[in-house]
Amino acid sequence: MTALSTVGKSVPRIDALEKVTGKAKYTIDEGVGLPGMLYGKVLYSPYPHAEILDIDTSRAEQLPGVKAVMTGTDVPNVRMGRVVLDQHVLARGRVRFVGDAVAAVAASTIEAAEEALDFIRVEYKELPAVFDAEEAMRQDCPIVLHPELASYKSVSFSELRQDLPGPNVHTHHKIRKGNVDDGFQKADLIVENRFSTCRISHCQLELPNSTAYLGGDGTLTVWSSVHLLFPTAAQISNVFGLPPSKVRVRANYFGGCFGGSPRAYMFAAMLALKTGRPVKVVFSREESFFRDLHRLPKVIYIKDGVTRDGTLLAREMRLICNGGAYADATPQIIRNGSFGISQYRIPNVKWDAYGVYTNEPICGGFRGYGNSQPFWAIEQQLEILAEKLGMDAVDLRKKNIVKEGEKNLRGEITHSIGAEECLDKAAEWIGWGKSSEAPGGNLKIGKGIALGNKYTMVDTVSASMVKVHKDGTIEFRHGGEESGQGCNTVLSQIVAEEFNVPMHKVKVVWGDTSIVPYDFGSVSSRTTFFTGNAVRLACQDAKRQIFETAAPRLGAAPEDLATGDGTVYVRESPEKAMTISALFMPEAKGAQKGALLVPEEGEILGRGMFYIEGVTDEDFETGQGTKLTASYGYAAQAVEVAVDSETGIVKVLRWVNAFDMGTPINPKLCEGQMEGGAGMGIGSALYEELVMDNGKILNPGFRDYRFPSTKEIPSGNNMKSMTVEAPHREGPFGAKGAGEAAMTPSAPAIANAIYNAAGVRITDLPITPEKVLKALRASKK
Amino acid sequence: MTALSTVGKSVPRIDALEKVTGKAKYTIDEGVGLPGMLYGKVLYSPYPHAEILDIDTSRAEQLPGVKAVMTGTDVPNVRMGRVVLDQHVLARGRVRFVGDAVAAVAASTIEAAEEALDFIRVEYKELPAVFDAEEAMRQDCPIVLHPELASYKSVSFSELRQDLPGPNVHTHHKIRKGNVDDGFQKADLIVENRFSTCRISHCQLELPNSTAYLGGDGTLTVWSSVHLLFPTAAQISNVFGLPPSKVRVRANYFGGCFGGSPRAYMFAAMLALKTGRPVKVVFSREESFFRDLHRLPKVIYIKDGVTRDGTLLAREMRLICNGGAYADATPQIIRNGSFGISQYRIPNVKWDAYGVYTNEPICGGFRGYGNSQPFWAIEQQLEILAEKLGMDAVDLRKKNIVKEGEKNLRGEITHSIGAEECLDKAAEWIGWGKSSEAPGGNLKIGKGIALGNKYTMVDTVSASMVKVHKDGTIEFRHGGEESGQGCNTVLSQIVAEEFNVPMHKVKVVWGDTSIVPYDFGSVSSRTTFFTGNAVRLACQDAKRQIFETAAPRLGAAPEDLATGDGTVYVRESPEKAMTISALFMPEAKGAQKGALLVPEEGEILGRGMFYIEGVTDEDFETGQGTKLTASYGYAAQAVEVAVDSETGIVKVLRWVNAFDMGTPINPKLCEGQMEGGAGMGIGSALYEELVMDNGKILNPGFRDYRFPSTKEIPSGNNMKSMTVEAPHREGPFGAKGAGEAAMTPSAPAIANAIYNAAGVRITDLPITPEKVLKALRASKK
Repeated sequence: MTALSTVGKSVPRIDALEKVTGKAKYTIDEGVGLPGMLYGKVLYSPYPHAEILDIDTSRAEQLPGVKAVMTGTDVPNVRMGRVVLDQHVLARGRVRFVGDAVAAVAASTIEAAEEALDFIRVEYKELPAVFDAEEAMRQDCPIVLHPELASYKSVSFSELRQDLPGPNVHTHHKIRKGNVDDGFQKADLIVENRFSTCRISHCQLELPNSTAYLGGDGTLTVWSSVHLLFPTAAQISNVFGLPPSKVRVRANYFGGCFGGSPRAYMFAAMLALKTGRPVKVVFSREESFFRDLHRLPKVIYIKDGVTRDGTLLAREMRLICNGGAYADATPQIIRNGSFGISQYRIPNVKWDAYGVYTNEPICGGFRGYGNSQPFWAIEQQLEILAEKLGMDAVDLRKKNIVKEGEKNLRGEITHSIGAEECLDKAAEWIGWGKSSEAPGGNLKIGKGIALGNKYTMVDTVSASMVKVHKDGTIEFRHGGEESGQGCNTVLSQIVAEEFNVPMHKVKVVWGDTSIVPYDFGSVSSRTTFFTGNAVRLACQDAKRQIFETAAPRLGAAPEDLATGDGTVYVRESPEKAMTISALFMPEAKGAQKGALLVPEEGEILGRGMFYIEGVTDEDFETGQGTKLTASYGYAAQAVEVAVDSETGIVKVLRWVNAFDMGTPINPKLCEGQMEGGAGMGIGSALYEELVMDNGKILNPGFRDYRFPSTKEIPSGNNMKSMTVEAPHREGPFGAKGAGEAAMTPSAPAIANAIYNAAGVRITDLPITPEKVLKALRASKK
Repeated sequence: MTALSTVGKSVPRIDALEKVTGKAKYTIDEGVGLPGMLYGKVLYSPYPHAEILDIDTSRAEQLPGVKAVMTGTDVPNVRMGRVVLDQHVLARGRVRFVGDAVAAVAASTIEAAEEALDFIRVEYKELPAVFDAEEAMRQDCPIVLHPELASYKSVSFSELRQDLPGPNVHTHHKIRKGNVDDGFQKADLIVENRFSTCRISHCQLELPNSTAYLGGDGTLTVWSSVHLLFPTAAQISNVFGLPPSKVRVRANYFGGCFGGSPRAYMFAAMLALKTGRPVKVVFSREESFFRDLHRLPKVIYIKDGVTRDGTLLAREMRLICNGGAYADATPQIIRNGSFGISQYRIPNVKWDAYGVYTNEPICGGFRGYGNSQPFWAIEQQLEILAEKLGMDAVDLRKKNIVKEGEKNLRGEITHSIGAEECLDKAAEWIGWGKSSEAPGGNLKIGKGIALGNKYTMVDTVSASMVKVHKDGTIEFRHGGEESGQGCNTVLSQIVAEEFNVPMHKVKVVWGDTSIVPYDFGSVSSRTTFFTGNAVRLACQDAKRQIFETAAPRLGAAPEDLATGDGTVYVRESPEKAMTISALFMPEAKGAQKGALLVPEEGEILGRGMFYIEGVTDEDFETGQGTKLTASYGYAAQAVEVAVDSETGIVKVLRWVNAFDMGTPINPKLCEGQMEGGAGMGIGSALYEELVMDNGKILNPGFRDYRFPSTKEIPSGNNMKSMTVEAPHREGPFGAKGAGEAAMTPSAPAIANAIYNAAGVRITDLPITPEKVLKALRASKK
């Protein structure tokens, strides 16, 4: 393999200049100033569960500036959902959480729209509500959120089923491997525990927003500040009965995403269709909190059986997931959240994960997509086992990590596993096994480690198009989303590498479903892998065209040509070369048209599509399949923490992340993902929680919902991000995704460190000072 | 050939609804409301010829709201021009016409920009000026407009030459065929005359405008209300030194075009680059008149030799064309304006056409592109010959019209010539040969006829892309311009025909150089022919992909398949069918990915590129070539006029146009072109003239520049538009262009009718009442 020129280099972000100079446009900036613009506001249910007896919009409609007031019946009777179709854009007859949308207003000013909300009179009849998933899951739970769905709603995982354990259970995902009873019987040690995670929010800084307008030809254009542009277009098309070709979803830069998707676009689209005018909807921070699709809270029961030498023999897990009032992505999150557990070799496994309706807000995708929660349980459980066996926790992990080529517990042949190296590097940096300096006083110091990973989903498609310009610029179009993670830079590097041109000769076009080829979207750590491959294929297709066109003129076979720095040349005789620009010019003045290499002003247009062949659905009864994921990226994190035994306050002193993302295309951006992951990991471990009270969020704002500032995150010599390279044979240049695994092991690593420091184990997220203090006091008794 | 389902039908315009309901956006509507918008205004020279001694912008710069004041040296020192590079965006050192741009201002409001113009102090030194082309053409003309260009400026036609007859001559176009002296010697009759045409303007109703802004990635986007989007992008790129890939030219609907191109975009682009903010430039109607590129005024000397039986033996023509202060498109207009004369068989021809600089405004493309002016001479000259020979003027024409397969006087093999049929149909409808009813009084009634044509240029390229949507919508992208002529409808019909779908399943994308494939533009009556062919090829490419994908499933060979109404089916067994949507779906749930016909959400994308092979440049000395045009459309017009001998006022009573545009794709739209052509034809014959006084336009407004209203154009039974079908073997479905020939014979037809009514022949356009009265009085003496 020839040396790489751009891939693997930490080139600066291509959007750095426009972002630091304030010139970059974000999605919220788009559509500003459109003539006739209206502003949309939404009225939400104040009750967690109620019947809507009547809605009177007449007074609101008469207010000056109000152009439309919509309620449930003004929207087509189409239910949304990824698997279970259970949610209307505006509630019909019943509201199921504090924040269920009841009515919406479009008015000439934001103030008029807000005022109109006050004049909509809704008569509710309150219904009893259920908030606890284990309670809601019971077969005899008297509160049923979706009685009308009972006949067909349940899935296991995506097949509709009737045999689920309760009327509020919408999902049952199963894994069956070997025989756990046998496994436990053979085990020398069995450990059982209960862990739980809480509801958290993405806290992306750009307020969720959308601007929608209907074009003269009937095309609805929707600017949306969330990822998944193509699936968004499909959803709008489906709900509003518009032909797919008449829906255009656009985006510009996002102020963060992390999986957040509060769907402001549905309201903007609905109001634009109703009024025929452009409508802008910008959520408040409070709306952003209660309309956000939260990280799925899970109660996790785990039982492990292990031999005396630390070999895992059996594992039984039962997860009850509080998906809130509507299923949305919860069925997929539950299922996909099971992939993480495949990193260890376990011959006997029984896994049952349930998605349950409650009268809490809706859940959805969140960095890690269901994966972080099981690791919260597993990576503490392993430490408990290690301690009981008198083994080193790192050794215990390494003993059980799946090996290259081995079949994992789901039936997949494993490949590209940097997990051991990640553990070794993280352990070495933190000084694993060496005791921490004791600072004295109330502070207890300890180290912790955990291993996590993130799969990339397998059953999606990415396509790309490459256009070679006369000036030698290589333009590529992709359908992913630049949410700040840097995909435009990474994909541009792939293009620069393929054409052997400097970065400034690469131009990216994205964010408009009407002009870019299909892509599932920038989720599941899939952009570098899937979109990167599609872009690479499109480059190769364009190069093929260049080679075929240039070959006769250079007197060489197409396969002997290469491109570099604006020229095409014979690989073995680089002096035989012509500029790419020359491809667009007539060979000689007065020559026949046929002498034009690329017909005058014609286009060199390459296309690429990437998907993985041979994908099968997993077996519903056993969770087994041969090709369920595209790849796994592994991350080991080790931390040193200080626990204040007087206050229970935990501080992360040192932090290391060793991340196997295959070949890092841009090491600096990978480091950025890891450092950002540290922030989110520490936040989700120690600070972040939506505090719920009877279905209502008590802290929907940045004053009361705490996430770590730079003071809470180690920096300088106390923060280290390391890449581990286990190239993937199907990844572009060997790359895998770098987005999510950055935070999947963070919380258990910190919990393990707290245990090692202070001897208390916290099993319920987040690890608040109150919980630590309570545990310390209990341990003293 | 199977019957056509959509082509040939007068389907309604696809933009009719949005246009009549006021929802259609025009280019002038675009960019409205962009944050930070500035407004640009330009300061023009009040002198026809002067040296700029000094410009003081200091006071203007200090005015509130003024963000930039630019003069010649603020723009790169790059001269624009199609053939001769002679014009700066802003004048440097010298102004050459009343309207030469001297400085420009960008300010926060239009008022501030206008006020700032008053505060720019320009010190001029007036120079002597020349306005008459024949005077300017003299070798010893003391006034030289471009002394710095004298060493290399002259062209013949597009080759730079030194041997031109005077310092102000920039173009000499020649045709040499046979030997005219021999021809005249053999002739029984020789007739010599001088004709002349005047300077007219396009009068498109949308004021010329442009909005330009620089994107975060350095791409300059320019909304422009003129055609030729891709050449416009190339010009901007060239003048401002931007890589072609960084210039994006966009358009929405135009309020008319007709070839007009006042280039407001150069000012908007320049000011946007200078200020870094969006800049909108909207010309006033007065600016639109003096900055418009006028129809080229020509003085035409014509000498014909003919035998007693009416066979044309020899023709000598000498044309002196007043191109104004800069050459712009004049060299091409002069050359292309020579194609019209090929409609008659003449064995001996000598043609010399000169482009001359004067201190008048610039000329450019105008419906007919140089063709209408020679017809003004030729089609009157033939009537004069016929009268002298005692022959019928229609018979004389028919005797000399080139025949299918014959070599015309330029050396082209003729094809698709509906000229005779056009003459016959027009003559029949007007009642040719039957005398008009005499109304008595001062009114003299008479009929006139003339034959014209319009070539379509040959040496250009059109490309198109077709995207098949999941919902069966066929989207096509093209790089032409919908200037109101209906090309989006006609091109959609071609798509509908190719896919056998109803019109509402076709979607058009246009007007954005960054997303549509290259097209030279909607000029030269070329859109239906060139772009239509490209669109058709792209459809066929997409269908090929559909057929190849569907064939295995339908159990047939790809070549046996056809598409229709959203399905693909076996042509001979139409019951074997599948929907196009089904191509995008997995064959069965759980099937392998490979079972997807088009990989999930993948695109069916067809591409087409059309250009004519074997094109050669013409011989510079003889004007001969084998493939100089793509096609010729012919039009015969016959009129009946009333001449008031007391006032000289001429009124067109009846009007017929018989137009051979090959296969009319949309007869109603062709009729629209013909009726619009009648308006422009009557206007250019009787009313329109930019009245010049020492280089200054005396009537730059719709009050004083008259064009015909509906009162001046016959209607109802007095107006007839007929199509003649001489299908072209290279045209899509046999179609040729329908835009321009609609008016090329109008003026001579009216002049001939006036002669037949009142016995006076007007040789100088327009035919004003004063000229008619003067001629009537002279004829009485």
